[in-house]
Amino acid sequence: MILIPGPASQELGKKIAELLKVKTVDLVFKRFPDGENYIRLEGTVKNEEVTIVQTTSPPQDSHLLQLFLMADTAKDLGAKKIVAVVPYLAYSRQDKRFLSGEAFSIETIAKLLKTAGVDQLITINVHEGNVLKKFPFLAQSISAISLLAEHFEKRGLEGAFALAPDEGAKEYAIAADKILHGGYGWRHKMRDRYTGEIGFRDDKFDVKGKDAIIFDDIISTGGTTAAAVKTLKTQGAKHVYSACVHPLLIGDAEKKILDNGAEEIVGTDCVPSHVSKVSVAPLIANALAEKEA
Amino acid sequence: MILIPGPASQELGKKIAELLKVKTVDLVFKRFPDGENYIRLEGTVKNEEVTIVQTTSPPQDSHLLQLFLMADTAKDLGAKKIVAVVPYLAYSRQDKRFLSGEAFSIETIAKLLKTAGVDQLITINVHEGNVLKKFPFLAQSISAISLLAEHFEKRGLEGAFALAPDEGAKEYAIAADKILHGGYGWRHKMRDRYTGEIGFRDDKFDVKGKDAIIFDDIISTGGTTAAAVKTLKTQGAKHVYSACVHPLLIGDAEKKILDNGAEEIVGTDCVPSHVSKVSVAPLIANALAEKEA
Repeated sequence: MILIPGPASQELGKKIAELLKVKTVDLVFKRFPDGENYIRLEGTVKNEEVTIVQTTSPPQDSHLLQLFLMADTAKDLGAKKIVAVVPYLAYSRQDKRFLSGEAFSIETIAKLLKTAGVDQLITINVHEGNVLKKFPFLAQSISAISLLAEHFEKRGLEGAFALAPDEGAKEYAIAADKILHGGYGWRHKMRDRYTGEIGFRDDKFDVKGKDAIIFDDIISTGGTTAAAVKTLKTQGAKHVYSACVHPLLIGDAEKKILDNGAEEIVGTDCVPSHVSKVSVAPLIANALAEKEA
Repeated sequence: MILIPGPASQELGKKIAELLKVKTVDLVFKRFPDGENYIRLEGTVKNEEVTIVQTTSPPQDSHLLQLFLMADTAKDLGAKKIVAVVPYLAYSRQDKRFLSGEAFSIETIAKLLKTAGVDQLITINVHEGNVLKKFPFLAQSISAISLLAEHFEKRGLEGAFALAPDEGAKEYAIAADKILHGGYGWRHKMRDRYTGEIGFRDDKFDVKGKDAIIFDDIISTGGTTAAAVKTLKTQGAKHVYSACVHPLLIGDAEKKILDNGAEEIVGTDCVPSHVSKVSVAPLIANALAEKEA
């Protein structure tokens, strides 16, 4: 196996290669003044099984194009098989056509990945698991929630309460509790019968005088997390932390979450950011090694 | 035939539909806060021959993704045939792999367009004509240079000298001269034998006391055009104008060109901009009508 760390996941790609003790192909990457991508693989991939590590966090479309270009070039140059490791998979919040005429974007992207030469895909905590069923090749999602929980456990936060900020994230709270053993719960979204406004049910959590950690897959604009922080603080939680796999942190998301009383945001390097304090490299290296074995 | 004006070419698309008296499919288009595209076709395309008008000027990668999504959705919903009108075709400056390992981007994009359901492509003044030969379906480029020359002729500039800013653009000067009848020429790029620096041969043009117009396909950062303006002014040209099909105008390109003494920049709506004073709608409408006939 040979590994290409893509422009969007240079550091993570190199870490995975080190763990697996496999060679990397260096990449010459630049953008022309008008914004076009230039990509060149410096090294031979002929007859190799090639793993490309490239996340598709914002700017999603450019990161996707770079992935298409790398995969197609590698196949053209004789790569035997291409495994795309896409830690954050863009366009994966919608798993069907809700309204007639809607683009079912992830299905289109899956087809394009196949045409570009991708034979298998590994991602981390895809938002809607069903989207992977539409892929015309083997596509799997691995969870990094335990890694996040272990990070807090090592910092002495065993016994902290694990909260999912909405029902869709409840599996994350359950998984984290298996490591933290401080109890878990989740908030329930509600839609006002008259105004249509989204709110939350007035749930009580066992957090008085305790530390609490909110677990989610993605923090985008941060509204849901900020609301959860506020609730936990109001109910008497001592310290509240925000943990997520994919810290997109759009706009003032970070400020919103901290302003509502969170001590800190901890994310992974699925999306490189200054809050990416946990690396998913060991998780991905394991998955790639198992695949080989 | 039914026409979809894409997010990047809304006005041009609607103009073409009006000229051809064909129906358009309205598009619901938005971007999510994290930057993902949302596209929905509001209207039936079943069994229709669908023309999608979508330029791929910067941000190229997002405009390409939008085109993939529109085409794939239309095909999924039963479109019989898809013609993509892509007035500015991104990634078309490179017509081969110059160095081993280089991505041959336009070839990848051509494959992806086919997978997305595109059956035919029409573009305007592609930078490297050879790139279209690599397309796995019929792809043609039409020239808008005569339209630009006619624009100046109508403004009373018959007799103006037509200059190509480098040898690669000389066909544009020749085509413009057929309408303006004021003579034509082109500058010769040179590379210094010792320093490797790019310069221009010291050509003399017949412009003393006359008006002159520089014709090119693309103005990107504007350096080549600005240098040509300066030369013409130095050689005594009265008024100098800059005409181009694709006014990308990256950074301070416009300022550079005007500061060197140009009166005005005139571009087309292949790339929507405040200098897009000439519409290619009639040209594209004709090409689509001929195709039908």
